[in-house]
Amino acid sequence: MRDVAVLGIGQTKFGELWDKSLRDLFAEASLQAIDEASVQPQAIYVANAGGGLYNGQQHLGALLADHIGLSSLEAIRIEAADASGGVALRQGWAAVAGGLADYVLVTGVEKMTDLESDYQGYVQTTFTDQDVEGFSGLNLTALYALVAHQHMAAFGTTREQIAAATVQAHAHARKNPLAQFNNAVKLESVLNAAALASPLRMLDGAPASDGAAAVLLGPLDGARKGRLPLVRIAGSGQAGDVIALHNRRTLTGFPAAERAAAAAYKQAGVSSSDIQVAEVHDAYSIALLIALEDLGFVARGQAGAAVAEGVAGMAGRIPTNPSGGLKAQGAPLGAIGVAQAVEIVRQLRGTASNQVANARLGLSHNVGGVGGTAVVHIFSKED
Amino acid sequence: MRDVAVLGIGQTKFGELWDKSLRDLFAEASLQAIDEASVQPQAIYVANAGGGLYNGQQHLGALLADHIGLSSLEAIRIEAADASGGVALRQGWAAVAGGLADYVLVTGVEKMTDLESDYQGYVQTTFTDQDVEGFSGLNLTALYALVAHQHMAAFGTTREQIAAATVQAHAHARKNPLAQFNNAVKLESVLNAAALASPLRMLDGAPASDGAAAVLLGPLDGARKGRLPLVRIAGSGQAGDVIALHNRRTLTGFPAAERAAAAAYKQAGVSSSDIQVAEVHDAYSIALLIALEDLGFVARGQAGAAVAEGVAGMAGRIPTNPSGGLKAQGAPLGAIGVAQAVEIVRQLRGTASNQVANARLGLSHNVGGVGGTAVVHIFSKED
Repeated sequence: MRDVAVLGIGQTKFGELWDKSLRDLFAEASLQAIDEASVQPQAIYVANAGGGLYNGQQHLGALLADHIGLSSLEAIRIEAADASGGVALRQGWAAVAGGLADYVLVTGVEKMTDLESDYQGYVQTTFTDQDVEGFSGLNLTALYALVAHQHMAAFGTTREQIAAATVQAHAHARKNPLAQFNNAVKLESVLNAAALASPLRMLDGAPASDGAAAVLLGPLDGARKGRLPLVRIAGSGQAGDVIALHNRRTLTGFPAAERAAAAAYKQAGVSSSDIQVAEVHDAYSIALLIALEDLGFVARGQAGAAVAEGVAGMAGRIPTNPSGGLKAQGAPLGAIGVAQAVEIVRQLRGTASNQVANARLGLSHNVGGVGGTAVVHIFSKED
Repeated sequence: MRDVAVLGIGQTKFGELWDKSLRDLFAEASLQAIDEASVQPQAIYVANAGGGLYNGQQHLGALLADHIGLSSLEAIRIEAADASGGVALRQGWAAVAGGLADYVLVTGVEKMTDLESDYQGYVQTTFTDQDVEGFSGLNLTALYALVAHQHMAAFGTTREQIAAATVQAHAHARKNPLAQFNNAVKLESVLNAAALASPLRMLDGAPASDGAAAVLLGPLDGARKGRLPLVRIAGSGQAGDVIALHNRRTLTGFPAAERAAAAAYKQAGVSSSDIQVAEVHDAYSIALLIALEDLGFVARGQAGAAVAEGVAGMAGRIPTNPSGGLKAQGAPLGAIGVAQAVEIVRQLRGTASNQVANARLGLSHNVGGVGGTAVVHIFSKED
């Protein structure tokens, strides 16, 4: 399979965007990526988690391709809960790497905020094992609360350490013009926010968001060298797991993410200690800790103390979620995995709003549900 | 890209299967295909059109992979309305052809009959351009009725000629043990059935169905020769179009299907006259006529007379839908495109319930909505 480069990127603002429709968001991000790459895609992968339930709209490949004037192209919609973006990125990478197409557009989009909040909870349960989890009232928040309790019980992780993830996310997003939240949050605010599912409270969870992100992929060989450094997809890994938590062997980590990371590291020929910047799936504060451990950035059980000490901050060993992540940049489900790639590309180009100095190797980590699907990509700066 | 063979097939009965769940159906078809191929897949493509709306269940890749004991594998859910199966088949083919994996399971599944009929109509509209079609009350039946009127006005196609498609479908399905309907239907019954959207009536439309179908794909080179002939995927093409009919240049054919067919014919190095058996997307009676013309089996405008004369019957020039097609075998949306492939493989192996003698080259044609997405595959018998 041939090497694949990211030739163009695009991203809308994330937030409650009342004046923009699902197709507006898709078009804005997609056209940015196409314009920057200055090539026309031959195929389009659309990542979207819940268009049928959020917007009463499916058949999204054809619909959205049409809205950017490319209705004749083959267009494929991918759904893997909030890992839809990462899965679509991997399929787009494989399409170019394997020779199905030379130029592929991968755009993730979600328009979540047109729904009332009660129904938001229902849509969340469709990403769980509905028969045994959703129907029992266990939405994603409740399931992540179980994970948090297990991590606290097994490793002595404290409530304050978990809350530190939220404080860090908001600090990182302050400079991000596309972020849903630019406000700082204090530790006390996280600890005293409205309760959701013990120990998680309102400020532990990522918001419902509208937004889109896009990458245009093409062969590295022959890619036009512009004023910006070229970025290559050096590794790609995906793995799955039982969705239902009661069937898992462990709740203190996500084995699917460990396997996806191992595959991506192997393909890229690097190890976790080589990574200089990461965008990880902090759907909840506890998920940041789990991610750091699953990816090998810190030892199992040590992430609570490590996050509190700043290991994942801008001055830490592994700056993580400089964008603000799902918590503060926002979490339009289908767009998450693609937005992570966009931020890593910016970091490697040296054009990020919250820049990690001299980064040459970055990683994105996208999780569906509570670890039922995980996708890891590694990106390298090419000279 | 390397040659790809179909190493195993599986299919459940299609129908109102009250005693089988979405995951039961998925498992039954998938395990048949895996057992027959005697290899374990490394990746799983799940085609499903409306699990979120029909079953309150998304994140279907991980969920269904788990249900067949393969939870650790990467699993990708594809949605393209009723073309989900064909699109997933093409992605699975590309994964093997391009080197992402050696063995890939592609399973299409839909569980539609748990919903009351009013809500069925709503789900249909999510496959249209909801903003301009669905919200105006135009569901798929109404849109296909517009297509039928255009075909009648442009070419003098008669109501009786259109109805002949339904009579033929039921005649073909009589021997199919997996078909939803085994009853013969008379022309008068079609003409006098309850009105849906003029000129289409109840017996012009495919039913809501539960069911699943699966293929296991692998490299042709080195494929084990068993007692059954090997079948190769000789051509694959996909194209899109504007979903909204008011933006189409023509309503008397589906340009996406013409482009998908042209790509598949070119890749296979054959023409329409070489095809000996076809499974086409007869979501409505008129759609059979459109398909025969889009695929080049009959000249534009001639399908009405040709179908009435039996050109697509078992003794005709191009035996079409020997399974009974969507109309009589059944139409579980996500399974359609995969079931078409399964039937063509049976035909080329010589094991079909309604066998076309000595068929060596077959075609499947899967359409999403009213031609917004189209996928065509060509299969050849290898000696």
